[in-house]
Amino acid sequence: MGELGLIRWIREAVAGAEEPGVIIGIGDDAAVLALAPGAALLATTDLVVEDVHFRRAFASPRDIGWKAVAVNLSDIAAMGGRPRWALVGLAIPASTEVDEVEAFYEGMRGAAAPHNVAIVGGDTSESPRGWFVSVTVLGEHTGTPRLRSAARPGDAVAVTGTVGRSAAGLAVLESGVERVRAAGIDAETVEELRRAHLRPTARVAEGRWLGEAAGVHAMMDCSDGIATDLGHLCRESGVGARVRIDRLPVAEAAREAARTLGRDPIEWAAAGGEDYELLLTCDPASAGALAAGLRAATGTALTVIGEIDGSGTGIIWVGPEGRPVEIRPGYEHFSG
Amino acid sequence: MGELGLIRWIREAVAGAEEPGVIIGIGDDAAVLALAPGAALLATTDLVVEDVHFRRAFASPRDIGWKAVAVNLSDIAAMGGRPRWALVGLAIPASTEVDEVEAFYEGMRGAAAPHNVAIVGGDTSESPRGWFVSVTVLGEHTGTPRLRSAARPGDAVAVTGTVGRSAAGLAVLESGVERVRAAGIDAETVEELRRAHLRPTARVAEGRWLGEAAGVHAMMDCSDGIATDLGHLCRESGVGARVRIDRLPVAEAAREAARTLGRDPIEWAAAGGEDYELLLTCDPASAGALAAGLRAATGTALTVIGEIDGSGTGIIWVGPEGRPVEIRPGYEHFSG
Repeated sequence: MGELGLIRWIREAVAGAEEPGVIIGIGDDAAVLALAPGAALLATTDLVVEDVHFRRAFASPRDIGWKAVAVNLSDIAAMGGRPRWALVGLAIPASTEVDEVEAFYEGMRGAAAPHNVAIVGGDTSESPRGWFVSVTVLGEHTGTPRLRSAARPGDAVAVTGTVGRSAAGLAVLESGVERVRAAGIDAETVEELRRAHLRPTARVAEGRWLGEAAGVHAMMDCSDGIATDLGHLCRESGVGARVRIDRLPVAEAAREAARTLGRDPIEWAAAGGEDYELLLTCDPASAGALAAGLRAATGTALTVIGEIDGSGTGIIWVGPEGRPVEIRPGYEHFSG
Repeated sequence: MGELGLIRWIREAVAGAEEPGVIIGIGDDAAVLALAPGAALLATTDLVVEDVHFRRAFASPRDIGWKAVAVNLSDIAAMGGRPRWALVGLAIPASTEVDEVEAFYEGMRGAAAPHNVAIVGGDTSESPRGWFVSVTVLGEHTGTPRLRSAARPGDAVAVTGTVGRSAAGLAVLESGVERVRAAGIDAETVEELRRAHLRPTARVAEGRWLGEAAGVHAMMDCSDGIATDLGHLCRESGVGARVRIDRLPVAEAAREAARTLGRDPIEWAAAGGEDYELLLTCDPASAGALAAGLRAATGTALTVIGEIDGSGTGIIWVGPEGRPVEIRPGYEHFSG
């Protein structure tokens, strides 16, 4: 199909029922959208690049579309906002099959639809080599957005859900699913880890609940790993932190994969990244009520893993016996 | 610099004076922005890909940044809206020099600042090969956006400014500036054409004025060339059009380059694309007043080039003697 055919196909593919807030969707020069009265606009962009963020050997077009949306939803969630619309820039080789493009958009829709996020615009281009995906998600916030810079000395540091599954999933894919199965990990665990890596779920409901809850101070999402992301949060807040590695809510499936593959689950959990959990700081007296409230509202756990330290600016990782442990921060683009 | 260093640099580079409407800019999970009360939100994304949309042999990083913003501003202008904020996704080879990144952002700022558009977010990534740029521009509209689908039978078809300079500029770059100078085109004309191709100016003030003016029906920007873009407009409106090629406002500099290079200026003007002028249809009785009013308000010409024909759906190009002329539509991605 030519570009025009592709745009027509996309327009039909993404048009659902009457989308709330979409005055003009795909097909004109720009989308025209209606924000809730009085709401602030939230906007975030993330790139997903072949051979940098994913390998085609592991990720299908559907996975790529899903993840490109999910990582942006996670950014809106981290502000405590409501995601509403997505725009996509997609550059793909001329040899790309139509059904791959369809699968990509179905992946996008799969991640977006549960949150009533409509795909309202975009651009397509040939790419001389590899897939390049840029997704922008727009959201709204009617209260006070939760910032990275709001951590206070004495705050508890907490994380939603579990950590380590995405890094474990990548290790499973790199080792080969068949080999990992043969080594004794059951199919369900393998699928859980694979899915955690390729089709992460943004903590949208959790972000909105925590964004309104009393006692929450700073919040961000964990895309690069707790070690790196908590470093950003501390830097923005001008504080340090102490984290207890034995408190990290390491996913059981990640522990199982680590045992089988001879890897360190703590490294995955602390530095692996891409779990897209929410990392926050809160009044320590509120932590218990926040955990109970979040579980009641969303079914998701909230675990205190450490505390904010006003006297330093670095992160000290502490083992079960209280001894400092070294954690290597996760992947950083352009590092070195 | 690592990614963190790059983000810090960008944050400092793009932070100007207090930006209106920017509650939180670059540096948190998402930007937080304040739309004018009651305004609709406009959103558009365009990709600019090396060796597809530009060649590094011709375009400097500053040119790339400029054009990536300008083409998006043009989409907002085409709706009659006010551009306000930009987000950028930039994937570049690991070997890219810091001063190239700086020049890219300076080019973005150069295109954005005259319109008070602030750069409020983005993402950077390594690219395995070549530059990939995705810019999203957000704008607002307090009236009724001008759509492509609003053309009516009997409307006059009109275009702002002049056409053909961008295609002429590309031809000059491809022929070699030195050769073209030696063939007798003066330096000023060469620079005008080169600049029209590499640093186009979006018709923002013109779009806002025309967007509010009585008598304007459909509007869009000319990115792919009048032949292709008027085809889109007619298709969306369910109408056809007749265009008089002798009425096309071909830029004098383009005519001069065409004479020297032995090329057809009409082909550049009708099918060359990337002039980023506004193409509109209007009540024919209003055309004179619109042209006079636009010139008084912005200094820019508006030229009637044809009329909308309710009986057909194609575009008929007519020569000075009233004979149909064939015009080959411009570049289309994924065509064939």
